[in-house]
Amino acid sequence: MNRNYNPLSRANPHVRRLHAYVPGQQPSGGDWVKLNTNENPYPPSPKVLEAIQAELAGEGTRLRLYPNPLSMPLRQALATHHGLKPDQVQAGNGCDDVLNLLMRAFAGPERPAGMMIPSYSLYSVLADIQQAKMIEVPFDRSMALDPEAIRTCGANLFFLTSPNAPTGVGFPRAEVEKAVAAFEGIFVLDETYAPFAGEDAVALLARHPNLVIVRSFSKAFSLAGMRVGYAMASAEIIELLDRVRDSYNLDRLAQVAALAALADTAYYAKTTADILAVRAQMADWYAYKGWFCYPSATNFHFVEPQTSTGETGAGVAESLYNALSARRVLVRYFPKHPLTQGFLRVTLGTENEMQRYRDAVDSWLKTH
Amino acid sequence: MNRNYNPLSRANPHVRRLHAYVPGQQPSGGDWVKLNTNENPYPPSPKVLEAIQAELAGEGTRLRLYPNPLSMPLRQALATHHGLKPDQVQAGNGCDDVLNLLMRAFAGPERPAGMMIPSYSLYSVLADIQQAKMIEVPFDRSMALDPEAIRTCGANLFFLTSPNAPTGVGFPRAEVEKAVAAFEGIFVLDETYAPFAGEDAVALLARHPNLVIVRSFSKAFSLAGMRVGYAMASAEIIELLDRVRDSYNLDRLAQVAALAALADTAYYAKTTADILAVRAQMADWYAYKGWFCYPSATNFHFVEPQTSTGETGAGVAESLYNALSARRVLVRYFPKHPLTQGFLRVTLGTENEMQRYRDAVDSWLKTH
Repeated sequence: MNRNYNPLSRANPHVRRLHAYVPGQQPSGGDWVKLNTNENPYPPSPKVLEAIQAELAGEGTRLRLYPNPLSMPLRQALATHHGLKPDQVQAGNGCDDVLNLLMRAFAGPERPAGMMIPSYSLYSVLADIQQAKMIEVPFDRSMALDPEAIRTCGANLFFLTSPNAPTGVGFPRAEVEKAVAAFEGIFVLDETYAPFAGEDAVALLARHPNLVIVRSFSKAFSLAGMRVGYAMASAEIIELLDRVRDSYNLDRLAQVAALAALADTAYYAKTTADILAVRAQMADWYAYKGWFCYPSATNFHFVEPQTSTGETGAGVAESLYNALSARRVLVRYFPKHPLTQGFLRVTLGTENEMQRYRDAVDSWLKTH
Repeated sequence: MNRNYNPLSRANPHVRRLHAYVPGQQPSGGDWVKLNTNENPYPPSPKVLEAIQAELAGEGTRLRLYPNPLSMPLRQALATHHGLKPDQVQAGNGCDDVLNLLMRAFAGPERPAGMMIPSYSLYSVLADIQQAKMIEVPFDRSMALDPEAIRTCGANLFFLTSPNAPTGVGFPRAEVEKAVAAFEGIFVLDETYAPFAGEDAVALLARHPNLVIVRSFSKAFSLAGMRVGYAMASAEIIELLDRVRDSYNLDRLAQVAALAALADTAYYAKTTADILAVRAQMADWYAYKGWFCYPSATNFHFVEPQTSTGETGAGVAESLYNALSARRVLVRYFPKHPLTQGFLRVTLGTENEMQRYRDAVDSWLKTH
């Protein structure tokens, strides 16, 4: 065999042009205040640990057996939780898995996908992998929805993040419904952050058969480390996702962890309330500073930093980002788009973590 | 929105013709002797449980954080284990995930995949999802490899299961090398069952840059429930797989479980030896009965049952399959192919489990 063999020449042509998605940094050392990937600052429910321990009983012998290939107990519990039927729910290895299945079923070289810009950049990565064109529908600085722009964009599969990331802006259900009703293709509503918002759009499933709602256990349920997400839609759409799904996509411990989390509503009501209290404090603090910040319906803020002389912009945001990193406070900066490059996305952590963040900001302000 | 909305009309045309893969039955009640999906009869190493417990320390607070997106500690350990570099290893959510990544990178409408028939039927399912033609290279009853048939088959990406399933037949490394050397595309050697064989083909990676070896933690490591598999290849091929990979494809507990399993070679040497001892006993028993059974290099046998009057064939295999099921002994039957329909695939369980299986066979023989 030729030592100069080039595997790239054997790859699909569109794969030759791909770049891997770059997730937010996961620093491994201690002492970081990690406000960059919208993780929950509180541990998962103690019931989650109990459920994992129970699954490990008998020297962990159940781990030698394949998991339930359909994650059926979890699908059933999710259906009950949302007032749906089990065949209306699909479970995935994180909601990224579910988003990928949607892309594989409904997008391709002749079926463009569409998304709002700015929103979750992974949609574009998944479209590229599927060799599907991605149609970008721009927000303006108001970050308001424009159902007419979505209706006429030409996508076969549209992704709306609601509440949106990285802006944190929530869309009223009535506005979302206008967009879903106007759009003729498959409409994916990514409600990863919905548990932090005042309302969600699950009720729309009953009257909009083109709607798919995607949820995650990573944020409100404190289980980013376990990779569980799900989709809700008509039974017909869910069955199509099963056709392109890896048959054992959720391991045993992920299934039982998600099941137990879903059941402990009291615990998560408390942790969510704590996050919302911090959100209100932080919004007040930004207002006091005179910094513009989008109203957040999520567990993070998208804020436009100002220097002490009132300057804003990309240079200011980058300067603060670097100053925070130097003090081991990690936030997220999106320099590539005019609507994001003057902002930082800051996850809502514990009160102590936010205090360290505020101290770092104030320290930066002394010299900027 | 029209109540008669048909989401199928929005799906990619090839998806409209797909059927979901049907995995082996996973009966949920107790009392079954489960010899149908080649699971290991022994629990995972106690070190696996310790590692999971350690990851759950501090009220499970680490579960709120995303896992290492590259599974880097696991990749490093796998590289060391096999004498490779970390950039030569890709970790997946089960080896099905890895096989899917290979299909997405190297197969498509204009890049056919190829496989031996009979072997692992999932390859065809994954090719269908990728809209790639699957070229089937037939075995004859000898189940011997024909490198020339693989070389000329026209596939861009070829899958060889070695040792093979469902036959259990192992291919000598020298034979595998002939096939890899003859083939110009990407050659995937699925070594899921290699830990039960006398030799593997990892050494071939150093001289065949078109070779990808896929492994699993599901069988020899008793971790089917945790979904961990991996690929070994050139750094160039591994980088291509990263481009089409879900960025957080392995959860935290799966990563630490696999790491701990890999480290406990003494434990798994013992459980594997126990399985091989049962394999020898069962081979003797089949020989004593005069039943044809392929020599197994795996943790299962592919055996051709005979009635007490010496009849074989599809009717005989199906009759025994049903009789075993009625006695709650579950094995696997593949009725669709002439080379498999007279056979049953029987996983090697504990001695007690095999005794229950043999008793059920003997009971069937009294009336057949």
